[in-house]
Amino acid sequence: MNLKLSEVVSGIEPVSEQWRQKAREYMKNLAMPQDSLGELLTLAEQLAAIKRSLKPSVSHKTVVTMAGDHGVVAEGVSAYPQEVTPQMVYNFVSGGAAINVLAAAAGARVIVVDMGVAADLSSLVEEGKIISCKIGYGTKNFARGPAMTREEAVQALEAGIFIAGKLAGEGAELLATGDMGIGNTTPSSAILAVFSGKPVQEVTGRGTGLDDEGLQNKIRVIRQALEINRPDPADPVDVLAKVGGYEIGGIAGLILGAAYHRIPVLIDGFISSAGALLAKHLAPLSLDYMIAAHQSMEPGHQFMLQELGLKALLNLNLRLGEGTGAALAMNIVEASCRIIGQMSTFDDAGVSKKL
Amino acid sequence: MNLKLSEVVSGIEPVSEQWRQKAREYMKNLAMPQDSLGELLTLAEQLAAIKRSLKPSVSHKTVVTMAGDHGVVAEGVSAYPQEVTPQMVYNFVSGGAAINVLAAAAGARVIVVDMGVAADLSSLVEEGKIISCKIGYGTKNFARGPAMTREEAVQALEAGIFIAGKLAGEGAELLATGDMGIGNTTPSSAILAVFSGKPVQEVTGRGTGLDDEGLQNKIRVIRQALEINRPDPADPVDVLAKVGGYEIGGIAGLILGAAYHRIPVLIDGFISSAGALLAKHLAPLSLDYMIAAHQSMEPGHQFMLQELGLKALLNLNLRLGEGTGAALAMNIVEASCRIIGQMSTFDDAGVSKKL
Repeated sequence: MNLKLSEVVSGIEPVSEQWRQKAREYMKNLAMPQDSLGELLTLAEQLAAIKRSLKPSVSHKTVVTMAGDHGVVAEGVSAYPQEVTPQMVYNFVSGGAAINVLAAAAGARVIVVDMGVAADLSSLVEEGKIISCKIGYGTKNFARGPAMTREEAVQALEAGIFIAGKLAGEGAELLATGDMGIGNTTPSSAILAVFSGKPVQEVTGRGTGLDDEGLQNKIRVIRQALEINRPDPADPVDVLAKVGGYEIGGIAGLILGAAYHRIPVLIDGFISSAGALLAKHLAPLSLDYMIAAHQSMEPGHQFMLQELGLKALLNLNLRLGEGTGAALAMNIVEASCRIIGQMSTFDDAGVSKKL
Repeated sequence: MNLKLSEVVSGIEPVSEQWRQKAREYMKNLAMPQDSLGELLTLAEQLAAIKRSLKPSVSHKTVVTMAGDHGVVAEGVSAYPQEVTPQMVYNFVSGGAAINVLAAAAGARVIVVDMGVAADLSSLVEEGKIISCKIGYGTKNFARGPAMTREEAVQALEAGIFIAGKLAGEGAELLATGDMGIGNTTPSSAILAVFSGKPVQEVTGRGTGLDDEGLQNKIRVIRQALEINRPDPADPVDVLAKVGGYEIGGIAGLILGAAYHRIPVLIDGFISSAGALLAKHLAPLSLDYMIAAHQSMEPGHQFMLQELGLKALLNLNLRLGEGTGAALAMNIVEASCRIIGQMSTFDDAGVSKKL
């Protein structure tokens, strides 16, 4: 019943260029100077191409926040202690975190998935407050060897695919990725370095707030990880296994699953973009289902977006993760749906056209 | 009963730096890495400073779309015929325009004000569908002499102040400016040229879609208008009278009135920013109540924002006006209110702080 990675990778269909063109032609008749709603129209065309409709709907919105821990925190790469990961999961469940507040503002639900938090969260699972796809109690320290086995990497991707399928079955019309995991800018920078070929120092930032010394240490740790593990950029599962993270694999899988089920998916910030990069390298067609929510403050994020070839909707100096930027961008996506679906044409409105 | 311009100009109070500081201190305790929500936090501080509260609310939102016509269209400065102004007012009333769709998406009402449309809209006024503050049937052609008298300029400003006061009385917590007026990028560029001292060709763009020849003609017309009228940058009412427009005066007045009543006001695009420039030059304290909604595609808009010293929230290549960019930004403002008002602190959530 559960979809395999290979089925999803080969089963993603291209979006419809015919519907994109139909949407473009149709919107020329909307009562406004041509192209005067800029990115909203481009987005509406993408939604029409994904959903094969001139009235795409994104009313049913869900943010999926994937949580996992990282053995590499043993190298002192984060400004916060690892215990914050489960503490924040409890905070998500109690509804007081930024992602809860911003998702509520966007009319979206938040689903929290334990992909591999280094704490026992089974009571939350039993209460139905989070979903468990737990692969382990945190990855191994990838400065010393692979973060996880190849089997675990596939398991993480398939967990994300499972979540996408579950949400598709519930009628999801727009998904958004989110992450929680102390230390997870480190694997994200490592993944970016592998796929972009850029020097580690260019793609590595301060995460939640490292000082200069901490940043130098983080760069050193990532360099060491790449030297020891030699991840193969031609093999995205290898990259995930060697220098990735459980929640990053889950995010990549969620994106692939969204594309497979033809659901547009908002990519949050730096960590989510690392998942998106993996998804792109596994299945290039998945790119057409992605919407980059925002340009993060994390300096490497611009290179993530370059690698993906995506332009972010928002640029508000966010660097929180959790899915917060994606939740904030949901209203823009909703607005673009309403523009194509609800605006009057020149003829409907009896408005004269250009001279 | 109606407030005079001079009363409002002298009655605007500074926002509270004490409350801004309180908000900043309070938000350091929210359970996230410090400053990780970037512009949302800056905005929350501004709202706290305006509303003198750590739980500012912007639930009651209104977009005010001011409509007016421009005698200068006789010079061929617009790609659309003048009849589009009243046609679009009818479109606003029927609910099918972009501003209706985007305001509805933001949970905002739209109020349409006839500041000086060159058509009889009295039936819409009688039906209560628009508000009339009509000063005339379009301004005069300012390439030949002043657009309006000084008395009319004051009347336009006081009409905007009146609308702000009326909405304040109805409980408005967030206002947004909008415009409709064929030809109104021409007075907006003229106003910008006067206040910035920049050459006309730098601050003049294609508006709703002029070709190269049309653009050169528009630049020539604005130069001629400035030579003939010699507006005095030290006297904003003179600038409005000589090269402004009724709806631009209305927007300036709305902003001044919002500031007077301590209501934050989202400034839409190029035309609204011309109103904001007038407001700033009339009462510099009004600036602290303004929020720049978006960076327009109209090339002069960047200089507008520079003159205002404001940074736009969105940059989505919009150039429609009506208040569309401001409506789209309302969700960002709402989100920032919810962040300061609803997020848990580290202590509430039992989350560990930075190492």
